[in-house]
Amino acid sequence: MTAFKQLQQHAKQISHFNHLAAICGWDQAAMMPAGGNQARSEAMAALSVHIHQLQTQPQLTEWYAQAETETLTDTDSAALREMKRQWQQATILPEALVQAKSLAGSKCEHAWRTQRGSNDWHGYEKNWAEVVKLSREEAQIRAEATGLSCYDAMLDIYEPGVTSTSLDTLFGDVKQWLPQMINSALEKQQQQRCIEPSGVFPAAQQKALGQSIMQLLQFDFNHGRLDESVHPFCGGVPQDVRITTRYSESEFVQSLMGIVHETGHARYEQGLPKLLAGQPAGEARSMGIHESQSLFFEMQLGRSAPFIEHLANNAHQHFSGQDSKLLSADNFQALYTKVERGFIRVDADELTYPAHVILRYEIERDLINGAVDHKDIPELWDSKMQQYLGLSTAGNFKDGCMQDIHWTDGAFGYFPSYTLGAMYAAQFMAAMQQTIDVDAAVRSGDLTPIFVWLEQHIWSKGSLLTTDQLVKQATGETLNANHFKAHLAARYL
Amino acid sequence: MTAFKQLQQHAKQISHFNHLAAICGWDQAAMMPAGGNQARSEAMAALSVHIHQLQTQPQLTEWYAQAETETLTDTDSAALREMKRQWQQATILPEALVQAKSLAGSKCEHAWRTQRGSNDWHGYEKNWAEVVKLSREEAQIRAEATGLSCYDAMLDIYEPGVTSTSLDTLFGDVKQWLPQMINSALEKQQQQRCIEPSGVFPAAQQKALGQSIMQLLQFDFNHGRLDESVHPFCGGVPQDVRITTRYSESEFVQSLMGIVHETGHARYEQGLPKLLAGQPAGEARSMGIHESQSLFFEMQLGRSAPFIEHLANNAHQHFSGQDSKLLSADNFQALYTKVERGFIRVDADELTYPAHVILRYEIERDLINGAVDHKDIPELWDSKMQQYLGLSTAGNFKDGCMQDIHWTDGAFGYFPSYTLGAMYAAQFMAAMQQTIDVDAAVRSGDLTPIFVWLEQHIWSKGSLLTTDQLVKQATGETLNANHFKAHLAARYL
Repeated sequence: MTAFKQLQQHAKQISHFNHLAAICGWDQAAMMPAGGNQARSEAMAALSVHIHQLQTQPQLTEWYAQAETETLTDTDSAALREMKRQWQQATILPEALVQAKSLAGSKCEHAWRTQRGSNDWHGYEKNWAEVVKLSREEAQIRAEATGLSCYDAMLDIYEPGVTSTSLDTLFGDVKQWLPQMINSALEKQQQQRCIEPSGVFPAAQQKALGQSIMQLLQFDFNHGRLDESVHPFCGGVPQDVRITTRYSESEFVQSLMGIVHETGHARYEQGLPKLLAGQPAGEARSMGIHESQSLFFEMQLGRSAPFIEHLANNAHQHFSGQDSKLLSADNFQALYTKVERGFIRVDADELTYPAHVILRYEIERDLINGAVDHKDIPELWDSKMQQYLGLSTAGNFKDGCMQDIHWTDGAFGYFPSYTLGAMYAAQFMAAMQQTIDVDAAVRSGDLTPIFVWLEQHIWSKGSLLTTDQLVKQATGETLNANHFKAHLAARYL
Repeated sequence: MTAFKQLQQHAKQISHFNHLAAICGWDQAAMMPAGGNQARSEAMAALSVHIHQLQTQPQLTEWYAQAETETLTDTDSAALREMKRQWQQATILPEALVQAKSLAGSKCEHAWRTQRGSNDWHGYEKNWAEVVKLSREEAQIRAEATGLSCYDAMLDIYEPGVTSTSLDTLFGDVKQWLPQMINSALEKQQQQRCIEPSGVFPAAQQKALGQSIMQLLQFDFNHGRLDESVHPFCGGVPQDVRITTRYSESEFVQSLMGIVHETGHARYEQGLPKLLAGQPAGEARSMGIHESQSLFFEMQLGRSAPFIEHLANNAHQHFSGQDSKLLSADNFQALYTKVERGFIRVDADELTYPAHVILRYEIERDLINGAVDHKDIPELWDSKMQQYLGLSTAGNFKDGCMQDIHWTDGAFGYFPSYTLGAMYAAQFMAAMQQTIDVDAAVRSGDLTPIFVWLEQHIWSKGSLLTTDQLVKQATGETLNANHFKAHLAARYL
């Protein structure tokens, strides 16, 4: 057997255990009663150790060296590249550092849960100093191994190929026009009135509504489910995708669009190349491309006028007896495109969201590269919030740099994926519209042409191409902010 | 570290992976969409291999030898005995035989699914010959390793300590009086009229009813759930017990009592000794003792007059508008104690069930010991059916020896557990009644004294005692058929 084939079999073996981890993780979030948590956490930890042992078996070094001398097809070369990438990610850090960072992150997160509520920056900062220190050590090691800068080496975990040079250009572009566009949109919306939901929207009816929209979006229920969890997510495996939502019975707006978002993630997973199942090359390309699919569904399709019509019609059927003005397409459109300046990223609308991300990107880049000290973050945060959104967070740590879990846990390099996803989504839509009348397809209720395009250009490619190649082949150009700007302008100006 | 401690840590490690297998197995039966089955089966197979590798690691031989020279407390001696038992079970058979038997069983089962419907004994017999041959080989190897007879070595898998000598005595006793008792019961019931459910009983209401009865039975919902599956079962882990049922909307009788049965299994699991969690000594004692708990709930408690009152009252609340005669306690009692001679074991009532089991026991004992040929089974079956239940299965293979999956798969030695469970349950109830007014406790709606007794005498013992010791300590005598006979006579004569 060739070394390449041995590596493939080994990857398949790892994927089986990742499958079990995904299902048990989903269960933990969506099904497990609270009293099961201790035993489950221990079992999941044992599984993690086993997976890590598989990923770092000593013979892999030789197999990779051997496989690189073997003659491979283009597909197999890509498969080898992606396997090797995951292997390097698994072996790059010393165990002691992984352990120390995990402990420091857990400690910081645990305390953060109460410190955030009491706006206790000084308490938080003491724990967080260690997280930052260890994250910098991690970045340093990754930088040495990859030849990238410290921060770029962290970015590479989530967005292989994306660097701060490219982000500076992309986000620098957005910064040019976004604050003014937010102003104009707010001005335009001053006349607009929208009716907020009031009354009771039973969870069972919301679920039925969500499922009808998932059907419209051609979610494959033979290979997936919709359930509930405190934090909505898309989990499971491509053959069995588990998405979740959370229902508040006093409104349906958030959960409904949340389902559209998770369905985008889910269809990407369901559409990954079946022949490469269990191989790294058959997995999703990156966090940003994953987010591009959820945001394509949520922002490009989900907030388009013809899709809003479907939402409104379906809501009418499931919430009979409710105020028909509330459930009108016009009101849905107003609800789903309302712009508001706010402190909290996760509550932000489509237009202000990039400001939250760019702020975090600029700070974490300088923090990890050592250009700023962690103690300077609140001041930096305040000044950028004023600059991008006209809001001050002076003294308000809980709605400032203490609001997210990412930094608390040491996940530096992740934030850019959100806005990269939004930009990819806009660029994909612009390319799609060159050959497909997207609005007409949505209006007809048969969205097949849209999904065929996504399947052909994105989903079926898995990780066979680099992100740059994928985007270039799908859209004819590399990623740029033009389509995102045009999309936002068309919707909000 | 002592060898005993090393063995304990190793057992704990295995238990983590068994936990994952239990949850993913439950998911496969209760949650997974059909399209996920192929990938799941592969992942579960990889997990099985991993667990088997852990169970058979070479250093265990030395650890066991060493541990047996170490000074241990009584509890630790029992813990060592049970670990060693599981290790021996895992290592006793050559891999090739396990593989061959699994393949032959799968082939036979797969064909059986259609052959049973077409009553095709000759087709079935051809595949089954191989299953029987390999099962005899297995029994031979187990017999040599344990010093037991071939069939007793198979019994030992499910019921350690129980032999065909003891079963011949126990079941021989039952055979003396059961056929006559069935006759008398049927005669007595000739006057009885019971109203069968008709109309629609929505699954959601049945579930709510089931949950209210689980609450009465003090199922711990912080450590477990109720869901649905095609074949009801009790799965999960002691910290998170997953029971399932199946709802037919045209009646509620079966599902309701099925939930009572599974709740018995569940409370045993939930009541196992927490200090021994993850250790073989902390697991359920045997299949028969497990069944004793489900049957204690279903037959001893569940069909008692005061419990039937609760069932009827709760059904009234959940099925308002239904015929009140149907939902009366008298009718529930009649429905749940109706005796009928039938061909099918799984449909049998409490009184005729032992006849089905004894018939199978006598045949499989002689088959595995080589006293009869597999081709003789249909004739033997017919003659015993006539003897015990007055029914003939001549030429009717599908309702005869082809009805169960157990033999098809080669699970010889399992059937006796069902009736052993019923006998243990009756003996436990008789002992409990010496100190507790069980009917009064049930009537009061607070069943705590009953569960305290079970917890103290059965659940908290795990596998620390042998089955004989457990029964002797709990009831003051070894297992005998007297209490079972008295229980049946009191209920049916």
